[in-house]
Amino acid sequence: MPRTIIGIMGPGDKATEDDLRNAYEIGKLSAQAGYIVLTGGRPSGVMDAGLRGAKEAGGQTLGILPFKTKDDTSPFADIIVVTGLNSARNFVNALTSDVVVACGVEAGTLSEIALALKENKPVVLMTQNRKAQEFLAELKPSLVHVARNADDAMAAIRKILSQ
Amino acid sequence: MPRTIIGIMGPGDKATEDDLRNAYEIGKLSAQAGYIVLTGGRPSGVMDAGLRGAKEAGGQTLGILPFKTKDDTSPFADIIVVTGLNSARNFVNALTSDVVVACGVEAGTLSEIALALKENKPVVLMTQNRKAQEFLAELKPSLVHVARNADDAMAAIRKILSQ
Amino acid sequence: MPRTIIGIMGPGDKATEDDLRNAYEIGKLSAQAGYIVLTGGRPSGVMDAGLRGAKEAGGQTLGILPFKTKDDTSPFADIIVVTGLNSARNFVNALTSDVVVACGVEAGTLSEIALALKENKPVVLMTQNRKAQEFLAELKPSLVHVARNADDAMAAIRKILSQ
Amino acid sequence: MPRTIIGIMGPGDKATEDDLRNAYEIGKLSAQAGYIVLTGGRPSGVMDAGLRGAKEAGGQTLGILPFKTKDDTSPFADIIVVTGLNSARNFVNALTSDVVVACGVEAGTLSEIALALKENKPVVLMTQNRKAQEFLAELKPSLVHVARNADDAMAAIRKILSQ
Repeated sequence: MPRTIIGIMGPGDKATEDDLRNAYEIGKLSAQAGYIVLTGGRPSGVMDAGLRGAKEAGGQTLGILPFKTKDDTSPFADIIVVTGLNSARNFVNALTSDVVVACGVEAGTLSEIALALKENKPVVLMTQNRKAQEFLAELKPSLVHVARNADDAMAAIRKILSQ
Repeated sequence: MPRTIIGIMGPGDKATEDDLRNAYEIGKLSAQAGYIVLTGGRPSGVMDAGLRGAKEAGGQTLGILPFKTKDDTSPFADIIVVTGLNSARNFVNALTSDVVVACGVEAGTLSEIALALKENKPVVLMTQNRKAQEFLAELKPSLVHVARNADDAMAAIRKILSQ
Repeated sequence: MPRTIIGIMGPGDKATEDDLRNAYEIGKLSAQAGYIVLTGGRPSGVMDAGLRGAKEAGGQTLGILPFKTKDDTSPFADIIVVTGLNSARNFVNALTSDVVVACGVEAGTLSEIALALKENKPVVLMTQNRKAQEFLAELKPSLVHVARNADDAMAAIRKILSQ
Repeated sequence: MPRTIIGIMGPGDKATEDDLRNAYEIGKLSAQAGYIVLTGGRPSGVMDAGLRGAKEAGGQTLGILPFKTKDDTSPFADIIVVTGLNSARNFVNALTSDVVVACGVEAGTLSEIALALKENKPVVLMTQNRKAQEFLAELKPSLVHVARNADDAMAAIRKILSQ
């Protein structure tokens, strides 16, 4: 049986304090629940924070890079998938995640949310942006779960995975 | 000099009457302006309508397919690019378009909008969905142009291309 | 009816005089036959020579780039598809071509030959490399056509397209 | 530090007994050496045999699928990367492997060899096909290592990784 993979998506340099804390917490709690944590693998923002949370809880981590080499990688990624696809790797991120958790909604993250929804993958949305919440929840009501905090998000993940 | 390419993105089967009319009009007016019209190339919805508008105005058309073969293609596509990439082809659509015109905002189209914005490509948005308008216009104010009708959209395209 | 596309693949900087002459001739003869000529779109080697041959014969050309922008493009490409996929674009080149003509067999070109054969696409092989000829002809005898010169190659293309 | 990944590439249904034994042995020996074993992830041929060898030796395994879902996966894959890219995933396989071991040389495997060489990745070649050996060894002499058996291949891998 392949292991369950939680994908934590979000901004790099432009991540807010909230985004980083959410990513770290989801990474930690996912690792404690026995899930593999996937992010975009770069050493910045939500990608780095999610992997760090998982590693500090003793979990295993997967970084899926847009670049052609491993030169610019989060130190918290155990396994690096090198795609060389630039942002087309966002499609791989979405398909590989059993659940996508979006910590923030800038353009790159939004593409991962949209590609996940296109492929009928569940998305847990962590953002203060009310317009994003309302628009995305209306777009695919059965797939989009708005979470206010990490405990809320983990409850949504557990419920999704039990279905 | 390579020719200017206007990408018309939008729903397939779930396109509304408004989406189809907008796609057809933008296709026609783009062809009359000498632009190549690009769509996702399938024989349905906005993809088909945009190509048909361009062909009926004597223009040239480009369909970029997600599939591995040409078997399921709009009859209005002159040149078919067969990607075999499933929805990762949305990245190719976004990068290949000089301007992305979104007629509708369902999940697949939203991924094209988001990938375009990620790569700093201008997007003209044609939708009645106010939440989508407001969220996306705030996300990248300098790149997102909301258009109420085809004339409005063509004015935005001309302005973008003259910069 | 979408137009027939002949893909001319081969080395960039490392192209030999033979490779360049073959690419130019196939480009010219394909354009005269009414086919669209596709190459990898960069301003060097076989990619540039094939497009130039087609343009000088009044044909239409398609360049499919590995990069994220149009900045580094052959001046003989009418339509540029910007993939941003690095060498994963070689898969798009192979699938989009009705026939792949390989002028040379270095690693990048070999990947396009192999991907074409994997997808049951015909390949016309133009190389002096006897080991490559023998290995590839044995790999897929019904799909690989070894051509000694441009007339030979065009005869093979016509035969393939008439089937 | 990300873990070292050995990619074992080769035919699915058309794998020979030799291909399967080589893949199994390389999988086992790579796991014993502490490497992660990567294959194309499908439940057939070299992909399945390489993963099985690694799992039976207590190693960890990574399957990178061409499909859009996990439905058709080797039971010996711990972590599944779902690309949805069809054979463009061969580029991801090549880039993600620190060393590519080719057990057989049919078209799909040849594309992985060629893409690896294009990106300057080392390839260990296990095949009885003399024409393939000679052609590929000449193509990139510094990167292609012909191995007669699994011990030979592991010696080549260790030498490559120590550089």
